[in-house]
Amino acid sequence: MKLVPLSDRVVLQQVEAEEKTASGILLSSASQEKPQEALVIAVGPGGLVDGKEVTMQVSQGQKVIYSKYAGTEVKLDGQEYVIVRQNDILAVVE
Amino acid sequence: MKLVPLSDRVVLQQVEAEEKTASGILLSSASQEKPQEALVIAVGPGGLVDGKEVTMQVSQGQKVIYSKYAGTEVKLDGQEYVIVRQNDILAVVE
Amino acid sequence: MKLVPLSDRVVLQQVEAEEKTASGILLSSASQEKPQEALVIAVGPGGLVDGKEVTMQVSQGQKVIYSKYAGTEVKLDGQEYVIVRQNDILAVVE
Amino acid sequence: MKLVPLSDRVVLQQVEAEEKTASGILLSSASQEKPQEALVIAVGPGGLVDGKEVTMQVSQGQKVIYSKYAGTEVKLDGQEYVIVRQNDILAVVE
Amino acid sequence: MKLVPLSDRVVLQQVEAEEKTASGILLSSASQEKPQEALVIAVGPGGLVDGKEVTMQVSQGQKVIYSKYAGTEVKLDGQEYVIVRQNDILAVVE
Amino acid sequence: MKLVPLSDRVVLQQVEAEEKTASGILLSSASQEKPQEALVIAVGPGGLVDGKEVTMQVSQGQKVIYSKYAGTEVKLDGQEYVIVRQNDILAVVE
Amino acid sequence: MKLVPLSDRVVLQQVEAEEKTASGILLSSASQEKPQEALVIAVGPGGLVDGKEVTMQVSQGQKVIYSKYAGTEVKLDGQEYVIVRQNDILAVVE
Repeated sequence: MKLVPLSDRVVLQQVEAEEKTASGILLSSASQEKPQEALVIAVGPGGLVDGKEVTMQVSQGQKVIYSKYAGTEVKLDGQEYVIVRQNDILAVVE
Repeated sequence: MKLVPLSDRVVLQQVEAEEKTASGILLSSASQEKPQEALVIAVGPGGLVDGKEVTMQVSQGQKVIYSKYAGTEVKLDGQEYVIVRQNDILAVVE
Repeated sequence: MKLVPLSDRVVLQQVEAEEKTASGILLSSASQEKPQEALVIAVGPGGLVDGKEVTMQVSQGQKVIYSKYAGTEVKLDGQEYVIVRQNDILAVVE
Repeated sequence: MKLVPLSDRVVLQQVEAEEKTASGILLSSASQEKPQEALVIAVGPGGLVDGKEVTMQVSQGQKVIYSKYAGTEVKLDGQEYVIVRQNDILAVVE
Repeated sequence: MKLVPLSDRVVLQQVEAEEKTASGILLSSASQEKPQEALVIAVGPGGLVDGKEVTMQVSQGQKVIYSKYAGTEVKLDGQEYVIVRQNDILAVVE
Repeated sequence: MKLVPLSDRVVLQQVEAEEKTASGILLSSASQEKPQEALVIAVGPGGLVDGKEVTMQVSQGQKVIYSKYAGTEVKLDGQEYVIVRQNDILAVVE
Repeated sequence: MKLVPLSDRVVLQQVEAEEKTASGILLSSASQEKPQEALVIAVGPGGLVDGKEVTMQVSQGQKVIYSKYAGTEVKLDGQEYVIVRQNDILAVVE
């Protein structure tokens, strides 16, 4: 099964965060903020969204930063995804 | 009796969730979140919605993911439906 | 006396709900949710609404489902009506 | 003195409600809801309102139903009026 | 010093209210609601406001009714003014 | 260092208020309301703002009244400024 | 790794504030307000944003003032960034 997003939607999968404090201590996941970095899994076709033409600017496989609190979490086949509007993607990480 | 949605509305019927925990225990429905997966039962004609042209992109029989909290629950002949705007449908599950 | 709705307004009259539980017990009205099913009593002329052309798509005598919490309740000659915008009508029941 | 409404405004005067319960008891005004029925006293010229052309559809002397909570109450020469936008008038009572 | 309003703004000065109760007792100002009647002191040039053409319809010296809670109170040379958008003026009192 | 505002922004500097009560007592600044009178320090270029053409109507050196609570306070080189949109300027004081 | 902002987004990096009180005491960072001054790190391509043409007016290396509470904080390679819309940038500091 796979998710085929509609209109200007983008399916993301969160990238596991592995972060150390300044002093080098590895934080357990409980003390970490939810990461905003994600992998683009699928991209909608764009087109007319609320009567305005939207061209998709991200593509599958890119790593992106997206807006905190944006999107809808979806679970499919045990995998967790976040579906956001392209507008909630702030930047591509290169 | 059947529901004929107006404008960009879509009639959905929730798909029963049958989910196991990682350790394989089948969860009873009380401990499960409300599923967001649904079957498309009927699709409105689209057209001018709030002065903007909307083309319908889903069709009857598709399985879709829709936005949590969106839509209106309706009961007809003992069956429960959710009527959403097409805009609240995030992705098609293929 | 009769109600002649303006613009994209529709005058509805709620249909009495008579619902049984799964086990066949007839629920008294106190334990029933307010029904969202209604009969179309009168339909406004449509036309320019907030600067956007609206064509009326429902007609008198149809049974419709309308959005919970939408509309204004009005009492005329002892009869109760709900006046909604056409946009608050989700589907026609056929 | 008289009120000359601007743009799409309409000056209304509430109609006194005299309502009986089902058993025929005349309710005192304290136990009655504020009536939404009103007489049209004066009608603005319409024209461009927020950049959109508005044509006035009600006229002086008509009895109308208007939206609860809409409008501004105004007292002039001891008389109470409600000034609403035409858009807050739901229906004409004929 | 004088106030020259920008765009669709109007400078108003409240008219002192002198009101009696039904029984003819003159109310002190503490027990009176803030009057909504005001004198037009200065009128902005209109023109493009939020991208929409606005033509000014009130003129200096008119007595107007304006929307409760609208506008900004300004004190200049000991005088109190209220600056409102023309859209907050409901009616002219003639 | 100087502030060069973008788009329809205007840099203001509050004018010190020196106000007496009716009885002629000079109020200390703690008991005074924040003044809304300000000097125009710098004016943005205007142009397309949210897709709408904006022409700047104030100019450097003018004294203006601006909307309470509008704008962002900024400190630069020990000086305090308020940056507002031109739309938050209500009137010019001449 | 670097951040490549989409549409009208701008990647900023806060400028360290070093501020003294009037009496010349250097404040520790705990008693300082979050500075709103930032360095432009990367600028999106602009173009159609919500159906409206946006031209980018800031460029990499400029020092800018941006709106308090605007933007999303992002951490990449231990560096903290703020991603804002160009519209949240109030002024350039020259």
